[in-house]
Amino acid sequence: MIKVGIVGGTGYTGVELLRLLVAHPEVKIEAITSRSEVGVAVSVLFPNLRGRTNLCFTEPKLDALTHCDVVFFAAPNGTAMGMARALLAAGVRIIDLAADFRLRDADTWLRWYGVLHSCPELLAEAVYGLPEMNRAALRNARLVANPGCYPTAVQLGFLPLIEQGLVDNQRLIADAKSGVSGAGRKAELGTLLCEVTESTKAYAVPGHRHLPEIVQGLNRVAASPVGLTFVPHLTPMVRGIEATLYAVLRDVSVDLQALYETRYRDEPFVDVMPAGSHPETRSVRGANTCRLAIHRPQGGDTVVVLSVIDNLVKGAAGQAIQNMNLMFGLAETLGLQSIAILP
Amino acid sequence: MIKVGIVGGTGYTGVELLRLLVAHPEVKIEAITSRSEVGVAVSVLFPNLRGRTNLCFTEPKLDALTHCDVVFFAAPNGTAMGMARALLAAGVRIIDLAADFRLRDADTWLRWYGVLHSCPELLAEAVYGLPEMNRAALRNARLVANPGCYPTAVQLGFLPLIEQGLVDNQRLIADAKSGVSGAGRKAELGTLLCEVTESTKAYAVPGHRHLPEIVQGLNRVAASPVGLTFVPHLTPMVRGIEATLYAVLRDVSVDLQALYETRYRDEPFVDVMPAGSHPETRSVRGANTCRLAIHRPQGGDTVVVLSVIDNLVKGAAGQAIQNMNLMFGLAETLGLQSIAILP
Amino acid sequence: MIKVGIVGGTGYTGVELLRLLVAHPEVKIEAITSRSEVGVAVSVLFPNLRGRTNLCFTEPKLDALTHCDVVFFAAPNGTAMGMARALLAAGVRIIDLAADFRLRDADTWLRWYGVLHSCPELLAEAVYGLPEMNRAALRNARLVANPGCYPTAVQLGFLPLIEQGLVDNQRLIADAKSGVSGAGRKAELGTLLCEVTESTKAYAVPGHRHLPEIVQGLNRVAASPVGLTFVPHLTPMVRGIEATLYAVLRDVSVDLQALYETRYRDEPFVDVMPAGSHPETRSVRGANTCRLAIHRPQGGDTVVVLSVIDNLVKGAAGQAIQNMNLMFGLAETLGLQSIAILP
Amino acid sequence: MIKVGIVGGTGYTGVELLRLLVAHPEVKIEAITSRSEVGVAVSVLFPNLRGRTNLCFTEPKLDALTHCDVVFFAAPNGTAMGMARALLAAGVRIIDLAADFRLRDADTWLRWYGVLHSCPELLAEAVYGLPEMNRAALRNARLVANPGCYPTAVQLGFLPLIEQGLVDNQRLIADAKSGVSGAGRKAELGTLLCEVTESTKAYAVPGHRHLPEIVQGLNRVAASPVGLTFVPHLTPMVRGIEATLYAVLRDVSVDLQALYETRYRDEPFVDVMPAGSHPETRSVRGANTCRLAIHRPQGGDTVVVLSVIDNLVKGAAGQAIQNMNLMFGLAETLGLQSIAILP
Repeated sequence: MIKVGIVGGTGYTGVELLRLLVAHPEVKIEAITSRSEVGVAVSVLFPNLRGRTNLCFTEPKLDALTHCDVVFFAAPNGTAMGMARALLAAGVRIIDLAADFRLRDADTWLRWYGVLHSCPELLAEAVYGLPEMNRAALRNARLVANPGCYPTAVQLGFLPLIEQGLVDNQRLIADAKSGVSGAGRKAELGTLLCEVTESTKAYAVPGHRHLPEIVQGLNRVAASPVGLTFVPHLTPMVRGIEATLYAVLRDVSVDLQALYETRYRDEPFVDVMPAGSHPETRSVRGANTCRLAIHRPQGGDTVVVLSVIDNLVKGAAGQAIQNMNLMFGLAETLGLQSIAILP
Repeated sequence: MIKVGIVGGTGYTGVELLRLLVAHPEVKIEAITSRSEVGVAVSVLFPNLRGRTNLCFTEPKLDALTHCDVVFFAAPNGTAMGMARALLAAGVRIIDLAADFRLRDADTWLRWYGVLHSCPELLAEAVYGLPEMNRAALRNARLVANPGCYPTAVQLGFLPLIEQGLVDNQRLIADAKSGVSGAGRKAELGTLLCEVTESTKAYAVPGHRHLPEIVQGLNRVAASPVGLTFVPHLTPMVRGIEATLYAVLRDVSVDLQALYETRYRDEPFVDVMPAGSHPETRSVRGANTCRLAIHRPQGGDTVVVLSVIDNLVKGAAGQAIQNMNLMFGLAETLGLQSIAILP
Repeated sequence: MIKVGIVGGTGYTGVELLRLLVAHPEVKIEAITSRSEVGVAVSVLFPNLRGRTNLCFTEPKLDALTHCDVVFFAAPNGTAMGMARALLAAGVRIIDLAADFRLRDADTWLRWYGVLHSCPELLAEAVYGLPEMNRAALRNARLVANPGCYPTAVQLGFLPLIEQGLVDNQRLIADAKSGVSGAGRKAELGTLLCEVTESTKAYAVPGHRHLPEIVQGLNRVAASPVGLTFVPHLTPMVRGIEATLYAVLRDVSVDLQALYETRYRDEPFVDVMPAGSHPETRSVRGANTCRLAIHRPQGGDTVVVLSVIDNLVKGAAGQAIQNMNLMFGLAETLGLQSIAILP
Repeated sequence: MIKVGIVGGTGYTGVELLRLLVAHPEVKIEAITSRSEVGVAVSVLFPNLRGRTNLCFTEPKLDALTHCDVVFFAAPNGTAMGMARALLAAGVRIIDLAADFRLRDADTWLRWYGVLHSCPELLAEAVYGLPEMNRAALRNARLVANPGCYPTAVQLGFLPLIEQGLVDNQRLIADAKSGVSGAGRKAELGTLLCEVTESTKAYAVPGHRHLPEIVQGLNRVAASPVGLTFVPHLTPMVRGIEATLYAVLRDVSVDLQALYETRYRDEPFVDVMPAGSHPETRSVRGANTCRLAIHRPQGGDTVVVLSVIDNLVKGAAGQAIQNMNLMFGLAETLGLQSIAILP
């Protein structure tokens, strides 16, 4: 059994990690921490876990965590970087679901996150946890930067096109729509039901923190700087990201459907739907799946890729466990087989 | 492996049965029928099942079904009674998720459902599939009438009070609130998103078909006729029933919390919450659990029981599988352990 | 033109007051206050008002408010009682949308609201602003206690029965379902979209502050103490209250439909629907209307009254303006004629 | 008073027309027709209108309609073209909220709508009812083709850029998100609450009927053929369209904020928000307003325009009344001043 610790388990990625890990056959959760809820039973905060776990929240102390084989950070940005050196030194592996180790460049991190990075020397070692891009490196990783939710949906959608050099890399557009759980579980006016239900809006158009993350990933694949316009939107639902991606084809004769099917044939968690499909976010609710569909409207040179994920699963907790499975030599799909709940 | 057939798999109880049975370790689905979708892959209708089943819908023919060990009817009322005799004769056991075998009296059935019952001789044999009430009989049942969603929530809530004769049986009130999936997957104006979202209403106040079913169950427990006012409501959500039950105590000195905890101590799917709790339907979304809380407001003689279930799971497909597990001597919880999805 | 001040205009009753008062033909809004948003344009907080008002939030100072003819308090409990004496002394009339003057007994106020009342001498003068109960007194009122949202729906539903002494007053039950806007516009976890959407729950079953308010009103009508069990529920919608009321009839021969139609024949904002109806909250969304329907299920002795309002309109801002119209001798419906938005 | 007829008043544009016309000070509704609901009171179908109109649905007969000054068609595509010649001959003016007269080319109509146009000779006369583009022609129009909902949001967003020739017309992208009411009030599986809530999806990516309408409008403004990729999406809300528009600037030095503010300065129903804004659809719910915001992310050469409307108001019934006001020489804003309901 893998001994697991969770730092910061009171948010939506935390409860989702718990839902999946409690049922994972090779995992034993050793500790779950929360500064604000010390001593409170997890099932008091999250009654869906009543009868399934006796865990209580504890102080986020190094001692307890160093006994773990791996620690998940489901805490705010800046938390993992404060404990990473010590944990790694103690031989504990780390999967950070926040942003601390996603950007390889400390200056870029400072620019977008507004604070100095406290362990920049680890940035080069951190492996970006998108298995479809980085599987080999993940198997041996000590420190995994779990991707953001938008970056997961957008990169999986663009990947085959960029890898093959089929589109104008300077004119990429990603128009993404997210459920509200992406904003986290925080007492804020902006995500009250009465503020966001029955409404849709774009936000962060001048610049969202997931932009540099996506660009970094696509740059690496393209082996040259890409130009991306990324516009996130808030839609009135709990879970789900729908990303509609636009690019201009260099050559319209390519069989895009075959390209995607081939690229993802062996991926357990990427589903290329039949030509003409329109994936719904609800088809992946609660599941670790990304569904894709590829269109070329009116036979023109604009390709439209539709990509859907559950932001809390393939966009966060599920992908983190997929990474853990890889890191510990388990079947990649272990504990991640539950079927999306529909309706 | 139990060979399972499903008749009428295109509704919401059908897709929920599939979600649970596909993952059930002791089940092999032999056939799923739908007159309107013959030849269509199940995963075309329900993309959450892509990659998890290759089943296609077939004609509802006896031949194919008689090879099964058990057939679930997730079809409209009146379907099961048309095939029950033949299937039973062939040694196939039946679990009907519709209403055909819920009422023991053929006249009552006629009055509430408006058609003659076509095999009234089976009514006496049919076992009402509420395990918390009928566990022993279910183990040997050939024909199980799976309870309605409201009757599950209401009966589990009233049961301990009625069994112990603690309340005035003539003044029972059940005010129940249901999600929209209870109305089924049918092309109708009344359940369009634009007709039911952002609104709440009572319906069927003059009389709902679940009323005689609940009364029959409570009568049997009380061993005398009870008087129940039952008012169902439609609330703007997909899944979930919240039933708020009111009764007048004969004796206010009883420890109701202890009574409920004792009554349900060994029930794997009934959770009596701590005193003072207010269960949320979301805490059981996707799970086969009924959560209860008991209140006596202002210390008066009115007891208020709060009961929540997922109408598609404990109120339909999950309970049906719980019954199957009992009928076939499996662990009662097999295939029913998934944790509610929250948020 | 009536010169109007609004204290505490940043909540949902505040923005609803603004929506209605900006379009009221006999009103000029002189000031709107908010400690936290001083200097901010109202239309920045509430973009629906862009182009319709140039008001900015100001400090809640007495000076500015004493120039008004009437001041609405849309602020938290405890605000109005701090300014009431001074405003009344300056000849300004007051309509408090919070609870400060709803309970006539200072001790009861202390028990339910947890703080001493700071001007108990005004409680006797305050007129409870339910026009259907108190129209005459409201015309001359200096100080109006605008009813709570639940009390409006529940009292209008019970009124004809209690006035005529037709039911057992000791066994009244009000099972009420509310949208989330009733909880106000505050940065709190409990009303985040992800916490309350797709779920229903009862809350405050041991005791809700609207209980003593309802009981006080019904006691007065009954001229004796009534016994009421009141259970509020949270449903996943923004606006609307549906109250399902239960009582035991002393005499089942009364024509309840005629009783209600007669009682409310001349009421502009109470709509008794045809026999057999099931009012939906969406039928009053944005409108100052209470719709009622009366049932006697299965011809028994339990009467079921269904009552729906928009909690922000007839349950708050609209009723406040109805009261203002009465106080200033205007047509009672002035500025309150807008039709509910459906869908 | 303008005598108004409505053909096909049982859908969502029908009830919205009624909500607005019943309150319009210069309108008298003479007749409202519905083949399926003849004799039924409008307020039975739409209880929000109880007490506000005594109209009943009648047969759609020419006789009754020829007494009207203007007839609104809120009926399915193909209805208006069947009655247009006779009504015009009788001196009745027409506003069609469906698509019959939106496309000027009968062949294009056939290709996208699949049936022959039955009065192609009227296409040249029909005036496209987007006042911000066609105000002068609308004042004298006999026959107005009221724009589609998406075309209203998209064209108002692109107009200033195309008029001034500021962008590459071959690379226009419109990513639009719509509420479900845009699909109409029809008994269909696809728009059941349980099928569309808590989910987002793109649809009609290969080609939506609003594409040729938008392209025709933009072509005319550009005086040359434009290239547009248009992807509509379904989001889980009732009302609202959010269109996010992308174009490549020829010259990044233009002050886009000033351009938009100038272009729409005198438009009563287009609101250019301050630089940096993110309009929400709820800010226009129930109102005849289009709110726009203009962004140039990261100072690049891609312009992003955000455009929101209420699809049933500015995208249908409200714009139709705006056109009527123009046609009959009334103040353009008459009867259209109600403020959006928020929350």
